[in-house]
Amino acid sequence: MRFVEKLLNASRKNNSLVCVGLDTDPQRIPRHLLKEEDPTFAFNQKIIDSTSDLACAYKPNMAFYEAQGSRGWESLKKTCEYIPEEIPVIIDAKRGDIGNTARMYAKAIFEELKGDAVTVNPYMGQDAVSPFLEYEGKCALVLCLTSNEGAKDFQLSLVDGKPLYEIVAEKVLSWNEKGNCGLVVGATHPEQLKRIREIASTLPILIPGIGAQAGDVESTVKFGTDENGELAIINSSRGILYASQQEDFDQAARNEALRLRDAINLHRGK
Amino acid sequence: MRFVEKLLNASRKNNSLVCVGLDTDPQRIPRHLLKEEDPTFAFNQKIIDSTSDLACAYKPNMAFYEAQGSRGWESLKKTCEYIPEEIPVIIDAKRGDIGNTARMYAKAIFEELKGDAVTVNPYMGQDAVSPFLEYEGKCALVLCLTSNEGAKDFQLSLVDGKPLYEIVAEKVLSWNEKGNCGLVVGATHPEQLKRIREIASTLPILIPGIGAQAGDVESTVKFGTDENGELAIINSSRGILYASQQEDFDQAARNEALRLRDAINLHRGK
Repeated sequence: MRFVEKLLNASRKNNSLVCVGLDTDPQRIPRHLLKEEDPTFAFNQKIIDSTSDLACAYKPNMAFYEAQGSRGWESLKKTCEYIPEEIPVIIDAKRGDIGNTARMYAKAIFEELKGDAVTVNPYMGQDAVSPFLEYEGKCALVLCLTSNEGAKDFQLSLVDGKPLYEIVAEKVLSWNEKGNCGLVVGATHPEQLKRIREIASTLPILIPGIGAQAGDVESTVKFGTDENGELAIINSSRGILYASQQEDFDQAARNEALRLRDAINLHRGK
Repeated sequence: MRFVEKLLNASRKNNSLVCVGLDTDPQRIPRHLLKEEDPTFAFNQKIIDSTSDLACAYKPNMAFYEAQGSRGWESLKKTCEYIPEEIPVIIDAKRGDIGNTARMYAKAIFEELKGDAVTVNPYMGQDAVSPFLEYEGKCALVLCLTSNEGAKDFQLSLVDGKPLYEIVAEKVLSWNEKGNCGLVVGATHPEQLKRIREIASTLPILIPGIGAQAGDVESTVKFGTDENGELAIINSSRGILYASQQEDFDQAARNEALRLRDAINLHRGK
């Protein structure tokens, strides 16, 4: 099955565009979990259990696991295995390196962790992305316009009168021969999201920046979805994970995921 | 001690600008090592033992270790610990993410692995790099112009008549308030390396692309070093590691590192 099909299946089954970002920080999980053998995994299990009928995807960010060394890798691997088979796992890694090396990252993410998709940095160009695209059933979501302040440093630069992020979107579209490319566009740039969706009408777009980063839900849905009101993967991490730091954290996470799902669906075309 | 001092000390002691890239691939190491408990680490130990008087730095590339999962992380961690204290360890990770997440990568690389420097991707701008710069004794080597074919896709784009990689070099220079920034420039672009060295006269420049990628030694040294013939970190990975795949691989690696060191020194100003 192609990634887009798997995504659409999960999204339709759960009537949801919500991606739950598993940026699990041991400093922020409820204290009572610290007595568990693997607190990070124990936390993730509870979050997954309480949101798996509300999510179209899960997105663990590798940085949070790597900060815990090999132990973190084990937590991440167990988490990826624990996510229900029908829900896509997006490994947020923002990798990019020469072909020889990118092949190793692809192996780590698609074979070792068995992720369904990966986020990739475009700066090194096509041959840094193509090793990920050799996996036909997987997906490379390429950074286009990111949600952070620093996006303005280079991504908004005008190249022949056109912003760099548009050139990235066009290039990624040209790399999409196997139908396994996508884009990452921050919810903090609604006008630009609209323009990018026009360029890449059929690509899945991962949209972080809702919640802690204050992107607007209505414009994100309006401009980020395709003509069927689909293919936008709207991520919330901290907003869901840390909705409560008490024993009821999983119920609070569920409530927040439900609230976000419904707020999004209010603005979907179909 | 600042990174640049540590680098210069090692470089002067060993009279070398050679960085040994530890891109250790279990598929390519000599067969007799596969019976070791940790073949990757056993290989790295031998390589380090045979080159530590010839190198100014070691540069493990994280992709090769991550492809082996948590086991690879353990091999990497042991390798970083094994490298002699006086020789800087550059973790080639090409990371870049929003501040909240970049802090976790910085923790992974500078605290968990105890690296001295890291390679960083500039696409997400200043706030994706600055968490690495909060570590004053460490160094962030920012991708400027990479050695691969795909460098042309975006890095050579003209922004107001100036190539993007020059804008990156200028920005990085402006971020260098604590004196802990550097650049990555491929040896495959000698003319551009010359221009970048003019812009960033005092920054360390990591230069991959010698050897397997066919960059020219003479122009790399001539254009990549500072006015004292220093601060270029000229990396060779596959050329050294896989000089032989027999039992004498460590001696062959030493011979190749020695040959490269001397070829480089032939062209150094001082």
